[in-house]
Amino acid sequence: MTFIVFEGGDRTGKSTQVRRLQQWLADQGRPHILTRQPGGTELGATLRRLVLDPASGDVDHRAEALMYAADKAQHVYQVIRPALERGEVVVCDRYVDSMIAYQGAGRDLALDEVGEIAWWAVQGLRPDLTILLDADPDDAVSIKQNKDRLESAGLDFHRRVRQHFLDLAAQRPEEYFVMKAFQGKDLMAAQIAERVSALL
Amino acid sequence: MTFIVFEGGDRTGKSTQVRRLQQWLADQGRPHILTRQPGGTELGATLRRLVLDPASGDVDHRAEALMYAADKAQHVYQVIRPALERGEVVVCDRYVDSMIAYQGAGRDLALDEVGEIAWWAVQGLRPDLTILLDADPDDAVSIKQNKDRLESAGLDFHRRVRQHFLDLAAQRPEEYFVMKAFQGKDLMAAQIAERVSALL
Repeated sequence: MTFIVFEGGDRTGKSTQVRRLQQWLADQGRPHILTRQPGGTELGATLRRLVLDPASGDVDHRAEALMYAADKAQHVYQVIRPALERGEVVVCDRYVDSMIAYQGAGRDLALDEVGEIAWWAVQGLRPDLTILLDADPDDAVSIKQNKDRLESAGLDFHRRVRQHFLDLAAQRPEEYFVMKAFQGKDLMAAQIAERVSALL
Repeated sequence: MTFIVFEGGDRTGKSTQVRRLQQWLADQGRPHILTRQPGGTELGATLRRLVLDPASGDVDHRAEALMYAADKAQHVYQVIRPALERGEVVVCDRYVDSMIAYQGAGRDLALDEVGEIAWWAVQGLRPDLTILLDADPDDAVSIKQNKDRLESAGLDFHRRVRQHFLDLAAQRPEEYFVMKAFQGKDLMAAQIAERVSALL
């Protein structure tokens, strides 16, 4: 019954650390599940394909946000809550903060309105701990890793995403573990395991 | 640039009156479109199929409401607003009130929360006139027309839907034309045409 979320920009090493934490939980003999948003249910995966499908045409930004919120609602209902009720540790790759940060950074939608809808969708279910892998998009390592995909406009977008994540973490510091990305996988995994161990 | 919505329970003669108003607008030479919610866009029709598809499994009530809200967002963005901007009269078969009345009557969701999400989805675009066809589900005519489909639980549900529609109309009486259903098609069509004529 512990709910742990990983957040952060693309290519911050999140997937690696999610897997490392899963391995640590397995080593500890802790019942757990690993899941993800969006697309953590069949309905959610269909909704995600629908948003991205060129056949859907020019999808309204509000329609897109509402479809991602529907993905979250179904995921909490079908996967996360039942696992927590079985007493398992739930590790989720992205959750509400990603929706707020990405929709708010890239769209003409108000952050607080997107947040209200996302939290309504998940029935206000807050993670016990959010591990935020933080990377400066202007940082040499990030630029090197992202150079093929980010031009100037992309950099601005990723700067806004990063700032939204940091702002959300600052609002509830006790519920966040903000960690500098690119420190070395083993060091990061050890620090995360230490923090999660204290929580459990 | 006039936005007219028809609301009301099932089998209140709504489709007939929608068509009659369309014919009247055509006779008057008024540029207009006839459209519907849910399913008034390709994306919306896909979302509606997805909600109703048994393969989607047990769809969470919030996920369902959010998918219907996404249908509305896309419909206003892609169909209704462009037509209003072209100066046309838009006649829409069901809109926000139906979502509030049906989701609120049949689900464990708070009416005001469903309303907030639906109005956010449509960017607060209110109809100039809502024509509410009102029928008592206990009424002999309704029961006769619905006898195969409504048992006791169904009747309760339809009573709540009716009351929600009437409550919404009572909150903004100047924007609603509440009309008793089953009065005779020609009489109803004439009264609706008179009211719409005054509006135009």
